[in-house]
Amino acid sequence: MRARLRQLSDYPERVRVREVGPRDGFQNEPERIATEDKIRLIDRLARTGLAHIEVASFVRPDVIPQLDDAIAVLDGIDVPVDVALSVLVPNERGLQTALEHKNRFHEVAIFLSASETHNRKNVNRSIEESLEALERMVPVIKNEGLRCSAVIATSFGCPYEGPVEPAKVFEIGGRLAAAGIDELGFGDTTGMANPRQVREFFGQAFGELSGLELTAHFHNTRGQGLANVLAALETGVRSFESSFGELGGCPVPPGSTGNIATEDLISMLHEMGIETGVDLDALIEASRAVQEVLGRRLTSHVIVAGPVGWGRREVLGQAPT
Amino acid sequence: MRARLRQLSDYPERVRVREVGPRDGFQNEPERIATEDKIRLIDRLARTGLAHIEVASFVRPDVIPQLDDAIAVLDGIDVPVDVALSVLVPNERGLQTALEHKNRFHEVAIFLSASETHNRKNVNRSIEESLEALERMVPVIKNEGLRCSAVIATSFGCPYEGPVEPAKVFEIGGRLAAAGIDELGFGDTTGMANPRQVREFFGQAFGELSGLELTAHFHNTRGQGLANVLAALETGVRSFESSFGELGGCPVPPGSTGNIATEDLISMLHEMGIETGVDLDALIEASRAVQEVLGRRLTSHVIVAGPVGWGRREVLGQAPT
Repeated sequence: MRARLRQLSDYPERVRVREVGPRDGFQNEPERIATEDKIRLIDRLARTGLAHIEVASFVRPDVIPQLDDAIAVLDGIDVPVDVALSVLVPNERGLQTALEHKNRFHEVAIFLSASETHNRKNVNRSIEESLEALERMVPVIKNEGLRCSAVIATSFGCPYEGPVEPAKVFEIGGRLAAAGIDELGFGDTTGMANPRQVREFFGQAFGELSGLELTAHFHNTRGQGLANVLAALETGVRSFESSFGELGGCPVPPGSTGNIATEDLISMLHEMGIETGVDLDALIEASRAVQEVLGRRLTSHVIVAGPVGWGRREVLGQAPT
Repeated sequence: MRARLRQLSDYPERVRVREVGPRDGFQNEPERIATEDKIRLIDRLARTGLAHIEVASFVRPDVIPQLDDAIAVLDGIDVPVDVALSVLVPNERGLQTALEHKNRFHEVAIFLSASETHNRKNVNRSIEESLEALERMVPVIKNEGLRCSAVIATSFGCPYEGPVEPAKVFEIGGRLAAAGIDELGFGDTTGMANPRQVREFFGQAFGELSGLELTAHFHNTRGQGLANVLAALETGVRSFESSFGELGGCPVPPGSTGNIATEDLISMLHEMGIETGVDLDALIEASRAVQEVLGRRLTSHVIVAGPVGWGRREVLGQAPT
């Protein structure tokens, strides 16, 4: 594992951030969030400068009741025209339902896991069964004029099986690329990735999967989320997924945090001089709004500390509200 | 600020970690921790493989009553002979008291701030007044056969004054080096550092202050603590300070987290294949012990999630207690 560091890319001027909180975050709440609250929060997020938001999922309502109002959410939201919306679909049946509302979103997100055990527990199929279904779905999505992104869960390790071979992840990615996806994300589903591994992984990934947009989806389960972002940035990754308020993700082991917080990510990027297009103050206000809806203190850092520029004002008692 | 990346060092095989929780952490607790609890917790920490622990401070008991039992703590603890102990002293009077117990520790830690406002609020002196006192103290410490380390607070930014010029930090460091210190730490007192800044800072620091051991003391105020560690590692830093349980640090703005958590740091380093000599399981148990003493859930991540290797066992219901 002790490879010498590769040639590292310079920090980029700009990166893309896809907000997944309204899907990944709301899905993991123990209580179903009211549809009107979801609409209000998405409308707010869509006015922070976030260019890409995953807003709904077409999953079976008896399996994930938290997201049973996908159509009402899509019908109710009112977002600026330049904000791209994604919906997640787990299978062909979900895709069929989603496509009945295809004029309300721009992208379909599909997924599977890189480990057999996780994939079976998550979608009750083998990886091969999932892949064959996804290979049928991708052309359907593309033929509708929609963008198609895929995420491979447990790309950096599986809580059941342990290490996951990058070659296995790239093989799955290659099949999806051949099927026609536009973007491929790698999920660190239970926060097992470390910066050395991330660097080695993406160092190979850009060679193995050239021509695709590659996206990193890290979790902060062990506090390393932004360190992994840094390692990915240094290896050339320019696209990240995160969740406002640090909502959602996979709380494994129980009680753990999940997704990296969008405001913590944006704060770090901006302080490093990397543009995102996001108004951080507005984003923090959106996270505070979801905190009020949920009635508990969320675990993101910047929601409490504010951006660096705020520190001085708060200390001096001149903080913004 | 947009310099091209410098030549980066390879990841090291081993780094040094100084545990500051028994001083920095216990000092920041609203309630004074009982002396016997402190002794029990330090004895436990000293058996985790941590080679260096800051255990007490000789400050005025009316100013910081939480640490008014420094002598009783030093008398009561029973640590392995290969564990180095530090005590913090704020001034010549504190040093005088400390030296009456000099056979009970190995190192004296001194400090000041790189910004005038912070230094005045912290120790009621100008930087120049602090420096002149420290220049008198360092030879006294060294003449007693003790190691002397110094920390410059607000090295990466001041909550009152904003940006701090690295040249100012290096000038202060140069004065302390000339006075004879063995090690110089840079404190990110309110978590204002970002990885680009850290890289540029240490890229210069090793040139400006050659011959000294340089130590990074980061806070996780904005969730970037371990990302800053990674940037420092990549620039050649091999010595870090942290606090078990994520105790302590400067909670500015109010409610913020402070120091990076030792267990989160050790977890990341070990997963990257970097040795520390610390038994992570034993360290997590020590953090859980302090959590019990304090009666509240602490904010470190690995205290909940466990090391990566544990994930599988916990999911499968075979977790260690």
